[in-house]
Amino acid sequence: MPNGYNGKILRVNLSNRSTQVEEQGENFYRTYLGGRGIVAYYLLKELERGVDPLGPDNKVIFAAGLLAGAPVAGACRSSVGAKSPLTGAYGDAEAGGFWAVELKRAGYDAIIIEGQSKKPVYLWIHDGGVEIRDAGHLWGKPTLDVQKVLLKEVEDHRARVAQIGPGGERLVRYACVVHDLHHFAGRTGIGAVMGAKKLRAVVVRGSKLPPMAERDRVKAIARWFADNVQTLSGQFQKYGTGATVSDLNTLGGLPTRNFREGTFERADDLSGETMLNTILVDRRACYACPVRCKRVVEVKGGPYPVSAEYGGAEYETLAALGSNCGIGDLAAVSWANQLCAAHGLDTISTGAAIAFAMECAENGLLSDDQLQGLDLGFGNATAMVQLVQMIGERRGLGDLLAEGVQRAAEAIGGDAARYALHVKGQEVPMHEPRIKHGLGLGYAVSPTGADHVHNLHDTAFAQEGRGLNGVQALGVLEPLPVTDLSPAKVRLFVYRTMWMHAINSISMCLFVPFNYDQVVELVRGVTGWNTTVWELLKVGERTINMMQAFNVREGFGPGDDKLPDRFFTSLPDGMMQGVSINRGTFEKALERYYQMMSWDEDTGAPKDYKLEELGIGWVSDELRKR
Amino acid sequence: MPNGYNGKILRVNLSNRSTQVEEQGENFYRTYLGGRGIVAYYLLKELERGVDPLGPDNKVIFAAGLLAGAPVAGACRSSVGAKSPLTGAYGDAEAGGFWAVELKRAGYDAIIIEGQSKKPVYLWIHDGGVEIRDAGHLWGKPTLDVQKVLLKEVEDHRARVAQIGPGGERLVRYACVVHDLHHFAGRTGIGAVMGAKKLRAVVVRGSKLPPMAERDRVKAIARWFADNVQTLSGQFQKYGTGATVSDLNTLGGLPTRNFREGTFERADDLSGETMLNTILVDRRACYACPVRCKRVVEVKGGPYPVSAEYGGAEYETLAALGSNCGIGDLAAVSWANQLCAAHGLDTISTGAAIAFAMECAENGLLSDDQLQGLDLGFGNATAMVQLVQMIGERRGLGDLLAEGVQRAAEAIGGDAARYALHVKGQEVPMHEPRIKHGLGLGYAVSPTGADHVHNLHDTAFAQEGRGLNGVQALGVLEPLPVTDLSPAKVRLFVYRTMWMHAINSISMCLFVPFNYDQVVELVRGVTGWNTTVWELLKVGERTINMMQAFNVREGFGPGDDKLPDRFFTSLPDGMMQGVSINRGTFEKALERYYQMMSWDEDTGAPKDYKLEELGIGWVSDELRKR
Repeated sequence: MPNGYNGKILRVNLSNRSTQVEEQGENFYRTYLGGRGIVAYYLLKELERGVDPLGPDNKVIFAAGLLAGAPVAGACRSSVGAKSPLTGAYGDAEAGGFWAVELKRAGYDAIIIEGQSKKPVYLWIHDGGVEIRDAGHLWGKPTLDVQKVLLKEVEDHRARVAQIGPGGERLVRYACVVHDLHHFAGRTGIGAVMGAKKLRAVVVRGSKLPPMAERDRVKAIARWFADNVQTLSGQFQKYGTGATVSDLNTLGGLPTRNFREGTFERADDLSGETMLNTILVDRRACYACPVRCKRVVEVKGGPYPVSAEYGGAEYETLAALGSNCGIGDLAAVSWANQLCAAHGLDTISTGAAIAFAMECAENGLLSDDQLQGLDLGFGNATAMVQLVQMIGERRGLGDLLAEGVQRAAEAIGGDAARYALHVKGQEVPMHEPRIKHGLGLGYAVSPTGADHVHNLHDTAFAQEGRGLNGVQALGVLEPLPVTDLSPAKVRLFVYRTMWMHAINSISMCLFVPFNYDQVVELVRGVTGWNTTVWELLKVGERTINMMQAFNVREGFGPGDDKLPDRFFTSLPDGMMQGVSINRGTFEKALERYYQMMSWDEDTGAPKDYKLEELGIGWVSDELRKR
Repeated sequence: MPNGYNGKILRVNLSNRSTQVEEQGENFYRTYLGGRGIVAYYLLKELERGVDPLGPDNKVIFAAGLLAGAPVAGACRSSVGAKSPLTGAYGDAEAGGFWAVELKRAGYDAIIIEGQSKKPVYLWIHDGGVEIRDAGHLWGKPTLDVQKVLLKEVEDHRARVAQIGPGGERLVRYACVVHDLHHFAGRTGIGAVMGAKKLRAVVVRGSKLPPMAERDRVKAIARWFADNVQTLSGQFQKYGTGATVSDLNTLGGLPTRNFREGTFERADDLSGETMLNTILVDRRACYACPVRCKRVVEVKGGPYPVSAEYGGAEYETLAALGSNCGIGDLAAVSWANQLCAAHGLDTISTGAAIAFAMECAENGLLSDDQLQGLDLGFGNATAMVQLVQMIGERRGLGDLLAEGVQRAAEAIGGDAARYALHVKGQEVPMHEPRIKHGLGLGYAVSPTGADHVHNLHDTAFAQEGRGLNGVQALGVLEPLPVTDLSPAKVRLFVYRTMWMHAINSISMCLFVPFNYDQVVELVRGVTGWNTTVWELLKVGERTINMMQAFNVREGFGPGDDKLPDRFFTSLPDGMMQGVSINRGTFEKALERYYQMMSWDEDTGAPKDYKLEELGIGWVSDELRKR
């Protein structure tokens, strides 16, 4: 039967250097699909409660999205997960590009990496074969250098590389996994887990895509998107994700100076338009995508000689290392972005950690000893760039900030915790929850800590009913204000969160505006399954429940679903001036969310009957281990 | 905006003879669709707690299905509901044919009938106009006579008539509503509610169907079905629903002698094949349906001179008045069927009441005074036919049985309750739950008492994944044995029950094997809404919750969700010999059902957060009135 998966999972044990291939049947894939669904399955099923995220008992799971390799925009993504060293909870991050497609071509849907190597290694996976190779000569080198060496060593310039940088080697708690230099599985610190395992890279190459049930159905959608890409994604094509800088500034929700403000006086200097008109030299695409939203930028000369070999800054980076640090110098932000790519650091957490340090410095919380001469006021681009480097190298204050803002605040003491904007230890990404309160709920309940892609679309898009969303299709008929947190909003939030998790497993880029039907049609076309939006939403719900169960097993509970105090105070500026999230309303929304999810309100554990309703009764056994 | 509804609801008050037209907007229809969704909405919203089902404060709601009038097989149905005089709970029944289409043509989606007339009346609704007309001359007359007179009086032979018979006039608690002599809204005794209101008939005629968004999309499906009708519905076309007699007998689940046995030695004499080869003279269709499953039969001479002007017996009737009474005489059963049609009696409850009386008689529980010379052994066709007549006329033992088996058993006393097979007072229909245990759960939890169309397909079809079902499309991937009542079965049951209630509101015949996609496509084609199977399933779930809330407000609770003891004892014969439903397993399944539905396990009340999740938070207010 033709379908989109290989049926093969590669297991690699780095302690004893063994590898084995495991098979999973069709129903496994139909239940968990791919990406986060498969990552969550293995992490919940195979990790012992309480393992050290940076010890040999943690596992790193790479899983391609179900559709990876289908010749259609957006269907190219994979997730990589582990118990997070940043949060101690379930962790994963996703990236686009080409790597997942190549993994599929090589014959695998996922890789489970166990144990810990004594010496640096990399994996070379090619058409079913696997080698664990020495990486001693790569250790400590920037990602660009390693990328080049690896392609030479495997003697195939079309191989694809997922690697960590020196930041991951040094266990920066928010180290990322860099895919082919341009695509970043940024969050939750999986790069540090690989670093702890001494695994520098996973290089893949294959020659055979898994069969597809009905190629024509997939192609028809791809063609529709290509034909209409100007209308559907023209902004992204032209400006990249940086288009969002101006949009959010207008809406009063551009994170500025550690979220103290919602507008930035130099927003225009960071915008996608400015990038286009100044430093942009090219655009890049992910597999099969006509949008080409990825930026390639170059800065010649000056203090920030940005190379075109790394990619340009995305919106999150422009805000995190730019406006949120009070910095409007696009060259400096692009340089900091390149440093993050070279070191393998998550730009969101890096920027957030620096903004946190700036506010601490402003409030006199950092000692001279900690500052070592750094002038850490908001807006100081030189200091920001220095700190990125220091974090990557774990030097001085950088070593402290490499622990993430939660741990850094504890170490600094005093009022520092007030400026540490995180949920469950993960730094808040660059979306201001006071301008879309549902997102605040999303930050609080996200199993990975504050995250913007688990529920990004719950409010802003939902109002408009456009593209990917059209929540009327799910029976949500009345528009809801962005500041609403009524039960009606929680309901919308539940549905949308289910969908966003499903979208991850399916492997679909958030920026490709396929509607529910089109996503269903793609899954059908690739797999031949007679699936529906019901089944896919339930896959999403299943995934959230596995993530939640993982966290409950680790001792997390409803008390950890918190939002930083700052978001309960009023925005001082911009279109939403005076708006805050009401704490009482927020607490009620949290309660409603737990109820609607059928999660125990005291422990957070999914109820047995919900797990049974989702066809994952086995999760109850894992919950009993808590 | 083109869509499938008129936006108009007709309200008629029979006490003060007033009528008014009310308007509802698009979101009302998208939330409740039609049929049962609208019936349940009005009954819950407008009835006071504790009203006398046969008093002036009960209301009768007729509501066309959403798609009624669309030129496609199966989309012709309507529901009629009220607080049931049989159960005291939420009541409704549905019928196919042409009446609902005509109501739409006349400009209305639904009719709310309030109050009580002093004299017999009928309603004449024509292209927006409404008249409350005298029906004194019709009172007491059989349905055939009344049909003819009414068509003459309204001077339009194409008018459509929903009427009660003398049984309804006499408040037989399971009196039905007869649509154009051939289509029966049989269950829950709505005919008696109309009788109590002195409303003999609702005659409708109109000239204008509501507009349709995309006629071609609807026609494409209609054409597909017409082109493949032999393959898809050939059995039904050839044998009608009577085809089921032989099938169930083979499976050991043909209700025989009040469900004491599962096979009947004379099953072949009652089969659809025998009917075809002996008394069938014609077939009839519902609106736009190429199947023509409705039978027209004729028996010339003899004790049972069946007329071709009434329809032939359906499966339920063949079993209820045939095998379940131990009777294999097709002419006698057809005659009893005609008597039920003429008197306006539900054939299921009528047959069940007679089988109950037969078993009571066999056990010596009926006095000579009660029997009045009737020889009531199983298999006595003469006595059966006599009793139907006596029930319709409420004479002697018939008067007692007209109360339904629950009340009759109380009156008879002794062990009679053991033989009264009902749930919440409604007689068990002709499907043996011991050969499909999910159906047993369905009987128990059905808000209208034992019912076979709220969840008929939960097991037998689900295994096969064919046509209408294909539950893989909802993510239920593993086949489940018919005797299974594990949480996995309860989950399947929940999904299927939601769908069956949605199907009612959409207006789709159970026997037209459209799959989920095709139903979604029909709703889209008619309404122009960008709906999904998710939205439609949620409409179904919303509907069950309104029905359940109605019952809880009336004082019903989980303790009323019971199955007759007989089904916990072994089947003595047939393919499933020795099989019974395990009481412990059954109780656990009930508990799981309540949990998965988010219904309070003590009171049965839907939880506030579930109602909010369904967008019907207003139902919580109604629940507080209990």
